[in-house]
Amino acid sequence: MNPDLAWEVWSRERSERIENVLDGALAVASGTPRLLLDAMRYAALGGGKRVRALLAYAGGELTGADPDDVDGPAAAVELMHAYSLVHDDLPCMDDDALRRGKPSCHVAFGEAMALLAGDALQTLAFEVVVRTPAGEPAAQITLLAKASGASGMAGGQAIDLATVGDMLALNELEHMHALKTGALIRAAVRLGAGCGRPMRADENDALDRYSSAIGLGFQIVDDVLDVEGTALSLGKTAGKDAVQRKTTYASLLGLSAARERIEALRADAHAALGGMPTARRLIELADWISSRTH
Amino acid sequence: MNPDLAWEVWSRERSERIENVLDGALAVASGTPRLLLDAMRYAALGGGKRVRALLAYAGGELTGADPDDVDGPAAAVELMHAYSLVHDDLPCMDDDALRRGKPSCHVAFGEAMALLAGDALQTLAFEVVVRTPAGEPAAQITLLAKASGASGMAGGQAIDLATVGDMLALNELEHMHALKTGALIRAAVRLGAGCGRPMRADENDALDRYSSAIGLGFQIVDDVLDVEGTALSLGKTAGKDAVQRKTTYASLLGLSAARERIEALRADAHAALGGMPTARRLIELADWISSRTH
Repeated sequence: MNPDLAWEVWSRERSERIENVLDGALAVASGTPRLLLDAMRYAALGGGKRVRALLAYAGGELTGADPDDVDGPAAAVELMHAYSLVHDDLPCMDDDALRRGKPSCHVAFGEAMALLAGDALQTLAFEVVVRTPAGEPAAQITLLAKASGASGMAGGQAIDLATVGDMLALNELEHMHALKTGALIRAAVRLGAGCGRPMRADENDALDRYSSAIGLGFQIVDDVLDVEGTALSLGKTAGKDAVQRKTTYASLLGLSAARERIEALRADAHAALGGMPTARRLIELADWISSRTH
Repeated sequence: MNPDLAWEVWSRERSERIENVLDGALAVASGTPRLLLDAMRYAALGGGKRVRALLAYAGGELTGADPDDVDGPAAAVELMHAYSLVHDDLPCMDDDALRRGKPSCHVAFGEAMALLAGDALQTLAFEVVVRTPAGEPAAQITLLAKASGASGMAGGQAIDLATVGDMLALNELEHMHALKTGALIRAAVRLGAGCGRPMRADENDALDRYSSAIGLGFQIVDDVLDVEGTALSLGKTAGKDAVQRKTTYASLLGLSAARERIEALRADAHAALGGMPTARRLIELADWISSRTH
């Protein structure tokens, strides 16, 4: 891969690449019920920003990993994210009928099949993360599991659920988001980086600082877009935080201060990795995450 | 461990052991939301026959594994099973209010929290399976994932769901159960056996034959008990197959032929492992599975 490729070219190439990897991971197999597979493919393919996969590939570039080796981790974090969206949209959770610009999985396939599709997407995430030969399988599984389970993504969802209608303080909101979205974003970067050369302790620390900054920045942008965006631009229901009386950075800080915070986090992500010459794609991702409009 | 221990003593000792292992895996950790953890503990602790854990320990004895090394795989298959029960009981699935003699998880904690608890129990299953040093992590993960996902347990559930009200042929019923319960039972035995000395190809084949026999036998007993049992003896709703118009071995073969089939499968399990001196616990488990009353 030419390191001089423009961001637009690189990100498009990797987005197409992950789509192919996911398509292969979700290929029709004998004995697997077709309707379940269709629901899984519906939820995981043909949409999404693929931020987590791009972060895994960019993490891999930091440590000189072969992109072929990063395919497994990149697919794993996307599958994990896709499963969380399917379950999050269910009537007993956010009850959302629109996702990635089309009907939610349960609207298209029914609640029970969507539940199973989400379940099986999570399973598949663990299956594919160890498919690639690079990296240490037990460490990769532990990283992915801790980021996704009760102390990570699912835990963040549980806090979100338990506090709807409550006014959260800023530190409570940050804890929730560190679990709900931050943990899997950090795992994406680290899983990718884990496919290349071993990192020094100071590099590990820098990568954690970067991941925290972009994870939080990503969420604040989400909150701002929920206020400012439309269903057409977002591909999902807009304005639902207010309807669901959720505390957000937008409601807590106001839009102007929220935007300032996004910029400060972007600067922090730059500062964390500024000294590392192979961090170019991670830096570009931080810029893109901060300025995205959908 | 004394190999001469009576079955009753061994199975009780191992049942207590797995309870402690699960309790440790579900210990309170800072940052993990308490309500989610409570729902997970409610669903995974203090109940169940622990068949899958016992099969893992018995598989470990076949290959001379240290029981300490089998704790991870044994806990993993129990957590995977517990998650499947939580999701299976949800209103959009079987809508069952009784499980292991107490209110189902969603009755006790609400649908959304039960959904998340099931999700996080699956995640934890993958986390604990690689915790023990013996065994090859990538192979263990692949085995557990294939047994649990779209080509295993979740796939079997999807077939079950899609065929409610249809009269299945015997081969269709067997395919469904091979996925829905057989795959995880086979994985339990193999994960345990994988913690000891490497097995020869003929031993692998014998273990697969054994696993197929007890997996199917387990399910036929379940079908018979659903007809003959009571909620008190089963700890779950009895007679629900008939209410839900599900094809079962009892409805397809009649109770008498179903019982003959159970006996034939028990004999086949014996025949498969008869020549292996360390298969004692697996043989005892086959006997227990065939004659269980709950």
